[in-house]
This record gives sequence, C-alpha cells and structure tokens, in this order.
Amino acid sequence: MITVLKPGVASEQIDNLVEWFEKQGLRVHISEGEYNTIIGLIGDTTKIDVELLQVIDIVESVKRISEPFKNANRKFHPEDSVIEIGDIKIGNGNFAMIAGPCSVESEEQILEVATKVKTYGAHMLRGGAFKPRTSPYDFQGMRGEGIDLLLKAKEKTGMPIVTEIMDASHIPLFEDVDVIQVGARNMQNFELLKELGKLDKPILLKRGLANNIKEWLMSAEYIMAGGNEKVILCERGIRTYEEYTRNTLDLSAVPMIKQLSHLPVIVDPSHATGIAKLVKPMALAAVAAGADGLMIEVHNNPAKALCDGAQSLNPEQFKDVAEKVAKIRQVI
Amino acid sequence: MITVLKPGVASEQIDNLVEWFEKQGLRVHISEGEYNTIIGLIGDTTKIDVELLQVIDIVESVKRISEPFKNANRKFHPEDSVIEIGDIKIGNGNFAMIAGPCSVESEEQILEVATKVKTYGAHMLRGGAFKPRTSPYDFQGMRGEGIDLLLKAKEKTGMPIVTEIMDASHIPLFEDVDVIQVGARNMQNFELLKELGKLDKPILLKRGLANNIKEWLMSAEYIMAGGNEKVILCERGIRTYEEYTRNTLDLSAVPMIKQLSHLPVIVDPSHATGIAKLVKPMALAAVAAGADGLMIEVHNNPAKALCDGAQSLNPEQFKDVAEKVAKIRQVI
Amino acid sequence: MITVLKPGVASEQIDNLVEWFEKQGLRVHISEGEYNTIIGLIGDTTKIDVELLQVIDIVESVKRISEPFKNANRKFHPEDSVIEIGDIKIGNGNFAMIAGPCSVESEEQILEVATKVKTYGAHMLRGGAFKPRTSPYDFQGMRGEGIDLLLKAKEKTGMPIVTEIMDASHIPLFEDVDVIQVGARNMQNFELLKELGKLDKPILLKRGLANNIKEWLMSAEYIMAGGNEKVILCERGIRTYEEYTRNTLDLSAVPMIKQLSHLPVIVDPSHATGIAKLVKPMALAAVAAGADGLMIEVHNNPAKALCDGAQSLNPEQFKDVAEKVAKIRQVI
Amino acid sequence: MITVLKPGVASEQIDNLVEWFEKQGLRVHISEGEYNTIIGLIGDTTKIDVELLQVIDIVESVKRISEPFKNANRKFHPEDSVIEIGDIKIGNGNFAMIAGPCSVESEEQILEVATKVKTYGAHMLRGGAFKPRTSPYDFQGMRGEGIDLLLKAKEKTGMPIVTEIMDASHIPLFEDVDVIQVGARNMQNFELLKELGKLDKPILLKRGLANNIKEWLMSAEYIMAGGNEKVILCERGIRTYEEYTRNTLDLSAVPMIKQLSHLPVIVDPSHATGIAKLVKPMALAAVAAGADGLMIEVHNNPAKALCDGAQSLNPEQFKDVAEKVAKIRQVI
Repeated sequence: MITVLKPGVASEQIDNLVEWFEKQGLRVHISEGEYNTIIGLIGDTTKIDVELLQVIDIVESVKRISEPFKNANRKFHPEDSVIEIGDIKIGNGNFAMIAGPCSVESEEQILEVATKVKTYGAHMLRGGAFKPRTSPYDFQGMRGEGIDLLLKAKEKTGMPIVTEIMDASHIPLFEDVDVIQVGARNMQNFELLKELGKLDKPILLKRGLANNIKEWLMSAEYIMAGGNEKVILCERGIRTYEEYTRNTLDLSAVPMIKQLSHLPVIVDPSHATGIAKLVKPMALAAVAAGADGLMIEVHNNPAKALCDGAQSLNPEQFKDVAEKVAKIRQVI
Repeated sequence: MITVLKPGVASEQIDNLVEWFEKQGLRVHISEGEYNTIIGLIGDTTKIDVELLQVIDIVESVKRISEPFKNANRKFHPEDSVIEIGDIKIGNGNFAMIAGPCSVESEEQILEVATKVKTYGAHMLRGGAFKPRTSPYDFQGMRGEGIDLLLKAKEKTGMPIVTEIMDASHIPLFEDVDVIQVGARNMQNFELLKELGKLDKPILLKRGLANNIKEWLMSAEYIMAGGNEKVILCERGIRTYEEYTRNTLDLSAVPMIKQLSHLPVIVDPSHATGIAKLVKPMALAAVAAGADGLMIEVHNNPAKALCDGAQSLNPEQFKDVAEKVAKIRQVI
Repeated sequence: MITVLKPGVASEQIDNLVEWFEKQGLRVHISEGEYNTIIGLIGDTTKIDVELLQVIDIVESVKRISEPFKNANRKFHPEDSVIEIGDIKIGNGNFAMIAGPCSVESEEQILEVATKVKTYGAHMLRGGAFKPRTSPYDFQGMRGEGIDLLLKAKEKTGMPIVTEIMDASHIPLFEDVDVIQVGARNMQNFELLKELGKLDKPILLKRGLANNIKEWLMSAEYIMAGGNEKVILCERGIRTYEEYTRNTLDLSAVPMIKQLSHLPVIVDPSHATGIAKLVKPMALAAVAAGADGLMIEVHNNPAKALCDGAQSLNPEQFKDVAEKVAKIRQVI
Repeated sequence: MITVLKPGVASEQIDNLVEWFEKQGLRVHISEGEYNTIIGLIGDTTKIDVELLQVIDIVESVKRISEPFKNANRKFHPEDSVIEIGDIKIGNGNFAMIAGPCSVESEEQILEVATKVKTYGAHMLRGGAFKPRTSPYDFQGMRGEGIDLLLKAKEKTGMPIVTEIMDASHIPLFEDVDVIQVGARNMQNFELLKELGKLDKPILLKRGLANNIKEWLMSAEYIMAGGNEKVILCERGIRTYEEYTRNTLDLSAVPMIKQLSHLPVIVDPSHATGIAKLVKPMALAAVAAGADGLMIEVHNNPAKALCDGAQSLNPEQFKDVAEKVAKIRQVI
C-alpha cells in the first residue's frame, strides 16, 4: 500500500503517522519527492481501512498495491477451487449447466421443465421462489411454496436445485436447497452475506447491477470470511447506457476473475440480455471466454410465463444451446 | 400503456390478447400501422406487469404512458407532502438540516458533535450505528450500542435522530429512533422495504448506487403500498466513470422528482462527492435547486474519524454552510 | 412512430398537428385515452425529427416504432452485406483476421510484424499512423510517413491495409489505403463521416467510447446516406465504472447488430480490455458470439512498443489465437 | 509518478528501467516491498507516456501523483484566469450570461431573440450555425449563412457571439466570431483542437458526452499547448443510465475544476437536462456551485423551433432566471 502525503507536511506529523503504521504491524518505507512524500507500507494491509487513512488531513491519496481480498485471492490460493454439489462439480475444468424457469409457477410447470432440461443436458435446476421485483404490484413469487415445488422436482429428477434468497430470516426455508443464490440487488446486502457465511452450503453470488469486479470479490470475501468458502460467482450483466439490451454482459469479467481469484465463475446470458434470441450466441461466447458454467432460463411455454420477460428459451432451444456448448468446450 | 405488436400477427391472436386486457379492466384501442398493430390501453395499468407483457411472442414492445407508481405520484396527490418529526417538518417549503458524524464512535464524540451542530443550525442529528462497508475487514459500526448513544444525544439536545438500518430483523432496535434511513445499497432490498412499510415512522430512502429515478420512486412505492406514507427521498450521488469525485451528485433529480412526486427530497453532499472541500458548494447548489433539506457529515475531529473518509466538515465549517444556506433560501 | 399528447389539449391544436403530419406524407391514427391522446404515424418516419416533435408544447413524448436508420436496416435489406477488399471478403459467413501493431514505428518493425502475422493467419494488416492520444505530450504517430511504411508492407506481403483517419483534410493521404478506420473518438465527427460517404472505399467504423448501438448505426447511416455502402462495424468496448479493464467489451452488440442490420461487425479485443492476457479469451468469445472478423494488436517486441500499452500480443501468441479461432469457427 | 514492478523481477531489469528514467531527466527512488518493488519518480513527468510505461513487461501498475496537465494546472498558475471578449470578462469573479437559440433559423428570429435576451440581461449571444445531429436526415444547420446572421445580430445589439465549429476546415468562416465553441462530440477531435490552439481567440470547450474531468482538462491542454490560453470550460451533462433527463448535469465538476485548474468554467443547463422546466433550478444551482457563467437556450417561439427540443425557455422565462441568478450571486 502506498500513501502519498500532501506537500509541506511537518516532519513531526509524518513521524506520528509512521508510528501508527508500525503499530499495525506494517513495515514503512519513505521516499521524499519534489512536492510530495510517499510512504510505502509492507505487510498484511488487508485490515487497513483505506477510507480511514484518506481522512487524515496530511494524506493526499492512498493506493493499494495488493488486492483487499484475501480468501478469494488467487495469490494465496493458486489452485482453482472446485465446488461440489452432490455429484456435480464446478470449477477447475468442471462445467455445470443450470437451467429452469425464471419463476416457479405450479407443480406441473416445474416438473415438466425439470424433466426436459435434464434430458437435454442440464446438471442443476434453477427456479425463482422469492422474486425481487422493481414494482410492489408485480408478481412476488410463490415464496416458501415455490421451494417445496422445487424440492419435488429434485426428488423426481435427482437434479440439485438453485434458488434465490432475499432475506436472512428466510434461511430456515432453504435448508434442503442445494445452492443458495444471492441476486444482483442483494450483492451488497452485507447482513445477509454474513449469515450465509455461517452456512456449510454453496452460495451462488450474482454480480450487482452496477458493481465492479473488486466489490464483487469483496462480497465473496464477506461470505468466505465467515467460514463458508463455497462461493460460485455469476456474471449477469451490468448497467450501462445501452438501450437495446437490458444489461451489458461483461464477459471479460470471466478471464479477469480467473486471474484474480480461484473461485469458479459462471454466466447467466438470459438476464444479462433480456432477449431470447441473444441467449445462444452469448452462452457460446461465455464458454469460449472460459466460464465454468451457464445459468439459462428455460420455460415450457414462454408465452404464458408469469415474470420472465422476453428472455426464456423453450426446451428445444435449450437443447440446441447445450449441444453447441459441448462442442465449444471441446475446442477450449 | 401502448403495446406494439410484431408484424404479421394473426387476427385471432390479437383477439385473444385484447380479451385478456379487457379482463384486467382496461379499455382497448387498436391502430393498424403499415408494419405493426398498436394497442392502446386505457385505465389503471399500474398492475400490468410490463415484463409479463413483453414475453408474449406476438408483442414487439411496450411503453407506459403513465408512471408505474401511484401512491408516490404527484398526479394523484398534487399537494406537496409534509413529513413531521416531532416539531420538525420537511417538505412544502419546510427545510430541515440534518448533521452529525458518519459513525457513532463514543458517548463523548456524539454528545459533542450533537451539541455543536445544534448550536450552529442543525434540526436533526445523524450518526451511523450499523455501517455498510465494502470490506468485511473494515469497521462495521457500534450497532445496537451506537443507537443507545444516539438516544442519549437526543435526550441531551432534544434533536430527533436519523440512523441507518441494514436488516429487517433489527427493526426492534430502532423503536425509539425518529427517522429510519435506508442506505443506497439497500434501496432495492424489497423485503426490508416491505417491513418498513408496516411501521408508522418516517423513512429516509437514499437513492441506490446506480439506480434511476423511476426505480427510486418504485422503492418509495414499496414502503407506501404497505401503508407508511412518510417517505423522505435523499439524493446521494450515482455511479459514473468520473474518477475525481466518489459519485456524481445528480442535482437535477431534485426538480425532476418535484415534478413527478409529492414526496420531499433532500440531498447528502458529503457522501456524494467524498471530498470535504466540495460539501459547501454542493450544499448551496442543492438548496438553489430546490431541495427540502440537507444531510451533512460533521465530525469533532475529522483527522481521527473511524470511517467517514475525506468528506466530513468540522463544526465551524458546518456553521458557515448553514449560514449561507439560510441566505440562499431567502432568495429561493 | 407514436406521439403522445399532454392531457387537456384543445382539439384545434390537435387538428393543426395532424395536418402537419399529413403534409409530411404520413397517415395518422388517433386514439383518445383517459388522460392522453395518442397519435400513431404510418409511413416513412425516418425524416421526422424527433427532437423537433418533442419541442411542440402539446406533445408529452414521442416513441419510434421503426428504427431511424434506413440504409443500414436489415428490414429493408434482409441479406447480409459482404464487403470486398481485394480478394478478402467480410460478412455473410466470410471471416477476416486483421492484425498488426498499435502504431507504425519504423520500416523494420512494420515489415517484420506484417510478415509474421501473414504467416500465422492474418488476412489484413493494421497499424496506426495518425494516433488519437488523450495528452498532447504523448506520441502522436508517424502520420503521412506511417502510411508510406504501411504501403511498403502491403507491397511486400500482399495484405490490404487498414489505418485510422483523424481529419477529413487528410483524405488525400489515404488514397492507397484499402480500408479507412474511423476511431472511437471520431464516431460522431459528422463532417468527417459525410466526407467518407463520398468515397468508394470500405470504412471500418469503431463504436464510440460511450455510444449506444443506435447512435453507432446512425453514424454508419451518415456514411451510407452519402453513397458509400461499404461499412464494417467494429466493437471495441464501451466506458463503464469497471476499473480492472480499460473498457467493457459489449459482445452482445454482435448478435444484436446482426438482428438490426445487414452490415458486418468485427471485434477488437485488444483495445477493449487493454490487457494482453484477456485478448485470447475475448477473441474466442467474439467468434462464438458470431463476429465476422477480429482486429488484434500484434507487436514484434511488446516491451518496446511506443504506444500500445499492455494490450499487444507477440506473433506467437497471435498464432495460438488464430488457430483456436479457426476451430471455434468450425463449431459455429 | 509511482511505478510498481511485478514480483520477482531481476535486478538487472530494474537497473535498465532506472537508467531509462534517469535519461528522461527524472530522479528515481526505489522501495523494496514484500512482494513488489516500487519506483518513485521525481521531476517533470508530464511527458512520460503512462501507456508506454505500462507495456513494459516488468511493470505491474503506474500511478501519477501530479496531474498530467501543465498549462491548465492551478498548481503552476494559482491565480484564476480571466478571459476577455470585448468588454465582457469571464473568470475570477466575472460572470457571463450567454443566451440565444439552439439553431439560427432566420434573420428575423435571431435578431428578435438577440434583442430580447440583451434587454433581459444576456452578455453574449449564442446560436448554432453548424449543428451536430445524430441522424443524417435531421436539420444540419444553416452553416455559413447562419454565421452571417449571427454577425448581423452582433452588429445590431453589440453582443459578442458564440457558435460551434465542427471541422478545422471551417475556421476561415469563424474569423469574426468572438468565441468558438467545441461541442461535446468533438471534445476529443484532437486535430481540431490543435488547429484552434493556433488561433488568438477564446475557445469554449464543452465537456464530452461521457468524458471525465481529467480528459476534459487534457483537451484544454491540447489547445493551450498550441499557444492559445483562452479556454473556457463548459459543463453540459454526462451520459448515465438515468432516463428522465437527457444527460446527468455534473455540477460537482464546477468546484472540482476550480481546485484543479485556473480556467473559468460555465454551465449549460439546457442541453444537460433537455427539459425546459429544469433549466431554472439547475441554472441557480450552477451559480450556487460557483460557475463563472451560464449558457441558456432561449427561443422566440419554442413551439416552432427547428431543433432544440423541449429544452428552450422563452425570453420572459429567461428574464426570470437572470434576475434570480443575480440574487444568488450576491449571496455567493
């Protein structure tokens, strides 16, 4: 970590600051510039609060050299992590296809979709029970009842299930859920992340609406710092000024995260684009970019879906995607 | 609401859709274009789920004419709302100055700041007890104990207090808090908003990190739809690619919201810019733009603050801002 | 096009507006809503100036149903365009690999890079002669002399050349250049686009720093409206708040443009990410997403490049990318 | 400037780099960290090309301590610059009100608007002759003829005129224009900036569509490096995901620039918001934030404007704004 001091700081003030750094267990290196004094800090700086440092009136700016995440950092954990969900593995060359409807709507619906996507190549079933919606007047999901239906589909097909949590108080309802999803709008719901950090269950952490990669990895760090190292990252597009697509899918996040972290990263091309016709090309692109899995919305009858908008594929379209994905994976 | 159909849709399909609209209590107007058929919908369309509509395979696009918020909409409530907190009023010409430290750190600190800001013109005291931090290793606030200290400061100075909530399960701790703040990262924590909608207590709803005005008003609508109409909006800057300031303070949101809604809107220039020197000009600009109040970070000893970064004023600087604000308000 | 009128407009005012629309050769359809009157316009609306319409004080909002571009629109030109550059074709299944250094630095450098990239699979040579730099103190390119060196490399290798233009007055210097590139910062330099529209030479139009797809296609329309239909679009990343990568590569623009337009679209993964290690995964992803070509920075000695930053590959790395690209293309 | 090296770099490589730095006239300070070596550079680093430095394979990252602009930098020019246009002054407490129509449409129109805005408090007349439009089918301005009409208005009213240039080849047409405006889309048209740097005439440089403050000051630096120090900056809103306003007016840019630079900065609330009702509050806010001037669109008959959209005031509304502005200025 580098701390740049303002011009004209008294040497006594510098001494005080240096003393404080040394109390934090850091070694200190000082360079005198023409205008500014620069203090280099060596040691474990993850616990130094950058904002605290910036408040000090003799400090001009602070720059981290090493990343502020530790558990998620590839530097301290060079091997790719592998997350196991029953027989399914994600990461380090293991690829998982997660498919299912945006919302669970009925027993008939979820069983039909589950059966079909399994036949066509899905490894896990997704389906929304608790639905975060911008409007209080929009369908809010079947909630607890929806989880029960997902568990029936799991029983019937043997596929593990992934579903989204919206509040820490709902954790007991997720006891038999295989992977708990944290949605984009809750990526920085830190109280929820802390509670999930106490579980021994994989967490699928979606990237926030407009969060950068560093914040995303810091949210993973919240879960891991609590003791739960089973974090799967999921890129789902970020907010920009582009208007044709719902979000801008940031596929460069995939190889970037592979450099920074050992955690597996999957891609959700359905929510990212919001357009069914774009799901296939973006799914293939995600695989080519190195994603460890895909999360794709599939519906038995898209024209009647309760909430998933224009972005769902039907099972036959999903089959086509799954087949092409397998071929791309052979090339990569 | 206008629904544009794709080219070449069979008339039978159109009839089915029209029938469904009519069942929702809407009147329907059809125009045949050269390429597309356009369906105009008249009546209460707030309960129509736009995403649901877009999924239908014969639909090309959907455009709302009227806004999707009802309780927050000025159209249905032309008079400015006034929120009362004890003797303090906000809205419809009533201006409130809220000041205090980023974090509550100790009894001595909060009492000193509270006493000073009251003397210099503050109407309410702010102070963070629960602190949302990007890193799990940064100071997380004094939590319940911090609220106790705020209540002591309230007792001593008579000023109502505002402090942030991070999880619905903490609501009992906020029983004696006068105004509950929802922070930017929780603006779309819908489960929390629903719980706050059940209270009879003013909610200060900060704009999300990268949320637009419509989403912000929809989050206010979540609280209001639950029965709690006491919502104060707070602009605090949005995320852009500008790097000198922490966020980009969107002051045009102030007059824009006054057009769209009857709710009061205040501005937080401290978090928005992240730079103490910018607090005064942006505070004055906010007042000139028509804000109903200001929320300003003030610290007894900025150089030792535990978390507020470079953005706090000292009490004397706050006094200067408060005096200038009063003068600008006379002009406006 | 749909024009929504404000509530309470006098029927005489509506009649005047309708009359004006009819004079523009449009047919008019009127629907009376509960609050608003909606006017549907049928016919060629590309020449209607939306901003002009919005100024009229009885107009609340205007929405285009059909896109404002005509020459670039797939609706009026369903077949994929193929751009021919000597023997090279781009579009409609024809894929082109463009490679070369960021800047032309010397005869030795450009000849060496050209020879190598040709051997390893490039179809065209790129190299910057005129360099747009944020700082006036940074290297501005070899300018005319750089074009001469590119022409020597063309002579030696037989590869057509692509290089960037920065001002219409330089057009004479580009007489023997095969493809003229318009850089991101000039995407809306409309006077330059108009001049390029008068040429009979392919134009490679990069997406602007922060422009959306519609604006990009409108800039293509500027060139095409002048009579030059040979436009190749090039996605190169857009500006967001993500800080690890230089820009955010928007690969969903590739299939989106294929839906909207018949023009070929290629991808530049080097500028988009600014990081050499990300070039390969993003190149493969671009191909999987359906790109008609790639534009990749290759340098003989990246450690000594004059301007291309951390984003260049060496020729051997380029060879590896080209081989993998060929395999992905077989799958697609 | 600080250069952080990658871990494990050989000392010989470091020596080579240090030697190169010293040849550039810089003094070098080396700190050895646990993982990384940090090189501090002291002296005039504005001519160091950061991107060049980043390419070097032993370099991990580069951070500037001092800003890359020199002529525009307040550090080297502590006094506020004052730009004189005839009797009008802008900067260092001198405030200028610029008003006029978006486009020059006819002699009658421009003379009427000019006369009225002068009466109501304008110091300078603006009017678009060359109009940058997204669509080639939209009105492109009266061009040279428009400039002639502006000159007639100048002759009649005595007000200096400001109008936009779109291409360096048009400079001769601007000989009698008092202030040449560079529009947002040309802020990084570096060839144009260089040509304007050779003139002895004030340049009004608008902030780019999505450019940050540093890039904006670097564009001012392009003009100043050529010898023309008469640069007036104009904030006009930046692109975000907010949809109610056309752009997001970044008023914090005003005090931020005052810290960084000695150049005057004015604000254009008309283009920024695109909504007439927002012009007044944002104009007052700009003045409260410390702006050195305002640029406001005024039209004699907004309902018939050829291009300015919903954002123009009529002369009486402008009068009201000008009066309130004067009062706010007394407070500030």
